[in-house]
Amino acid sequence: MPACSVRHYSEVVSPSGVSIPAPLQREIKSLLGEKNVLDKQDDLLLYEFDGSVEKGRPDLVVFPHTTEQVSKIVRLAAGYEVPVVGRGAGTGLSGGALARGGGVMIVFARMNKILEIDVENQRAVVQPGVVNLDITRAVEHAGLYFAPDPSSAKSCTIGGNVAENAGGPHTLAYGVTTNHIAALELVLPDGEIVRTGSKHGDAAGYDLCGLFVGSEGTLALVTEITVKLARKPEAVKTLLAIFETIEDASQAVVEITASGITPAACEMLDGWTLRVVEDYVHAGYPRDSGAVLLLEVEGLAEAVDGQANAIRDVCKRCRAREVRVAKDDWERDLLWKGRKNAFGALGRVAPSNYVLDGVIPRSKLPQALERIKEIGKKHGFNIGNIFHAGDGNLHPIVLYDPRDTKQFERAIDAAREIIRACVEMGGALTGEHGVGMEKNELMSLLFSDADFALMRRIHDAFNPDSSLNPGKIFPMSKGCGEIRIRKKELAGVRA
Amino acid sequence: MPACSVRHYSEVVSPSGVSIPAPLQREIKSLLGEKNVLDKQDDLLLYEFDGSVEKGRPDLVVFPHTTEQVSKIVRLAAGYEVPVVGRGAGTGLSGGALARGGGVMIVFARMNKILEIDVENQRAVVQPGVVNLDITRAVEHAGLYFAPDPSSAKSCTIGGNVAENAGGPHTLAYGVTTNHIAALELVLPDGEIVRTGSKHGDAAGYDLCGLFVGSEGTLALVTEITVKLARKPEAVKTLLAIFETIEDASQAVVEITASGITPAACEMLDGWTLRVVEDYVHAGYPRDSGAVLLLEVEGLAEAVDGQANAIRDVCKRCRAREVRVAKDDWERDLLWKGRKNAFGALGRVAPSNYVLDGVIPRSKLPQALERIKEIGKKHGFNIGNIFHAGDGNLHPIVLYDPRDTKQFERAIDAAREIIRACVEMGGALTGEHGVGMEKNELMSLLFSDADFALMRRIHDAFNPDSSLNPGKIFPMSKGCGEIRIRKKELAGVRA
Repeated sequence: MPACSVRHYSEVVSPSGVSIPAPLQREIKSLLGEKNVLDKQDDLLLYEFDGSVEKGRPDLVVFPHTTEQVSKIVRLAAGYEVPVVGRGAGTGLSGGALARGGGVMIVFARMNKILEIDVENQRAVVQPGVVNLDITRAVEHAGLYFAPDPSSAKSCTIGGNVAENAGGPHTLAYGVTTNHIAALELVLPDGEIVRTGSKHGDAAGYDLCGLFVGSEGTLALVTEITVKLARKPEAVKTLLAIFETIEDASQAVVEITASGITPAACEMLDGWTLRVVEDYVHAGYPRDSGAVLLLEVEGLAEAVDGQANAIRDVCKRCRAREVRVAKDDWERDLLWKGRKNAFGALGRVAPSNYVLDGVIPRSKLPQALERIKEIGKKHGFNIGNIFHAGDGNLHPIVLYDPRDTKQFERAIDAAREIIRACVEMGGALTGEHGVGMEKNELMSLLFSDADFALMRRIHDAFNPDSSLNPGKIFPMSKGCGEIRIRKKELAGVRA
Repeated sequence: MPACSVRHYSEVVSPSGVSIPAPLQREIKSLLGEKNVLDKQDDLLLYEFDGSVEKGRPDLVVFPHTTEQVSKIVRLAAGYEVPVVGRGAGTGLSGGALARGGGVMIVFARMNKILEIDVENQRAVVQPGVVNLDITRAVEHAGLYFAPDPSSAKSCTIGGNVAENAGGPHTLAYGVTTNHIAALELVLPDGEIVRTGSKHGDAAGYDLCGLFVGSEGTLALVTEITVKLARKPEAVKTLLAIFETIEDASQAVVEITASGITPAACEMLDGWTLRVVEDYVHAGYPRDSGAVLLLEVEGLAEAVDGQANAIRDVCKRCRAREVRVAKDDWERDLLWKGRKNAFGALGRVAPSNYVLDGVIPRSKLPQALERIKEIGKKHGFNIGNIFHAGDGNLHPIVLYDPRDTKQFERAIDAAREIIRACVEMGGALTGEHGVGMEKNELMSLLFSDADFALMRRIHDAFNPDSSLNPGKIFPMSKGCGEIRIRKKELAGVRA
């Protein structure tokens, strides 16, 4: 472990209060043009938040159009020892795209072109600012789609998906983002432009593509992505299984998997949450049940019927009161509308909500949900549960009022207690939201100093000065020498 | 790029002709006991070869029983600047487990225990010397199996599978080894014992597990593996589709995938090969056809029937003369027996065969097979084709007589020309056999100096002195400073 040598970024704060040296600002403006640079506090404020409960304001926000511009910005910033952080649509849930150490934020909104669609080989080459769902829209005429479907698919960008290795309801059958990426173009922290992966087949040598996907912008900035396109299934069936108790619903999840069926999606909503959702969305969810499972099976028409029947039988054995099969696209869309608008619905009963992300062994679902309820009670919160049950990927939702500082702190405490419980059950810290600055301190629950040293070998092989996205993934106390962070930010770090 | 500083390993050759310093040999014998160390040339000779056309003799072969012993051996060898290479069953096809630079070979044959089976969560913890098929044998009572099924599954070890990221006929549906590994215990080149991955859920932080799988023993030695177990499908159907021409068979492969069906396996044998196989195995293959596809679909009983019917329809549309569906397990086993004993069959018509491994975009199958035929003709060889057609993963088999040096050289030339053709078609150097020392020079076809520099960042973060498995993956000319290799070996390197 190197000796502690945190360089205080505040040392380069300019007299105007902006931490970007004037010459750097001038050079970047001359490179990109005034209209592609934001430096006013009112504008910067908009980039201080993402979808998480974290914050971190950049000192300069820039909108490059090309990989070469990204490379030049990174080189310029490195020359002034100013940190750089990449950002897509800012929908992330762990603070990955926040400027924890201030500095230059590169927003990929204007690198949003689909560069190539290869229908025959099921590949598309896209820029990082392309919105997730727009990839599917561009290829669906050919019967193809991009499988990873985070709930934010209508607004999140593929660059952010790659950085955080995003998941979604259909992760169960199709895997997370990393399973759908064939090749990447990257800008390293020294400005070098490199490529890894290959359009067809696995590349020989080290799996660098797999390493960069999910590295949360701490190793390189992604400037071009070759995605794998999946073929749209011939048939889809969507089922809503209604249970009296959450235990029965949990048991059904365990038994569906044990029976050898892999549904395309297997989502659970608990009784309290589904009542809140139903009041808002009117999806036809039963207001008097303990829990529902929203299940989907896909494939050939004959196969899908068989699978739907098998799932219905398992649910019935697990005391499902009713198993509805959506009769048509309209009913199917309605069932999903409930799931997809759940966060909006919860927004009606509390000023804000904190969506957690933890993983448990699937077999421990009933205990985990019981434990979450207890933790909520202890801290005085209603905690909703809308989650990817088939993966054991929990998303407890803590409803709180952010204007009440004490309540916010209690929400944070409850959240940490829940994540700790997941780890104690043999699970993981995050299923799909990433570590970011939300959970970097919690990493010590799961990883030893030796583990951090192992990860640091990789980190330092690419980003030895932590000039790229500092203060993420690793706990601050292990981060000696790796984070250039302003004093005021350091002071604000939660213990 | 560092200045060239190849250290000639021959400088430490002892007077006896053995390159292991006497004190190191004594210390290793005292650590493991005499019976776990081989140092006689007659014994070492057995470890000079693997399943490839390469060779490289170790100077000492050792059989540790524990991770701690592995760690100590690595530390001891590092102290004397002697290279170390790991080896499983020696069935590899690219020379990954050969001692190219001499030194100590760690054979994992006696670390062959299954340490834990967790049926509920579908995991097993195994030592690297466990034979691939033995994992399935140990868990099949619970309806589980280990999905990756290289043709050598009866003899190859899971440690070797992890090192080379092995595939097999069922890769098409289930992915290669990396998709079935949850966690690893590793010994780094400095002797440190580390763990990565987690039993349940994806671990937070960098995907180190994915990085180590397929790194061909150049980053660490794998000493314990947590594998994911798959659930045996309810039903399986095996089909043999018989075509008059290889073009029709290739077209069927393209159209099956395009129709949205993913068979569990989709293997092709060309007409010449299947006649040789039929003469030996009597699997009922048609001796007068141009090519056959061996297809398998798996899943729920209802689903499987639908898929088998759909595949039959596509094959018929592509002018299949006949599509047989195996009526029972006996017929199914017989069909697979032909595929699995193909290499034995080819051994009857030539003294030796060189199994290549290249990948092409699936859509280019017909052109690729035509090109292989031409290359064979040019160099005067019969080249058989038995391969994973669904993945576009070719295995051309060059039949030659190794006693005829000129013929051997011609076989090598033909092999290189074929691999070059794969790359020119937009494919890859290897689908599942690895780079090893078979293709390290060919890597320059696909990778630039910048690409090598990127990979070297990873290599040097773990194995900066190339003390572990030197002379693999990277071309020698890019390998300045990274390989401790004996003069005689260096002289023998093919240009």
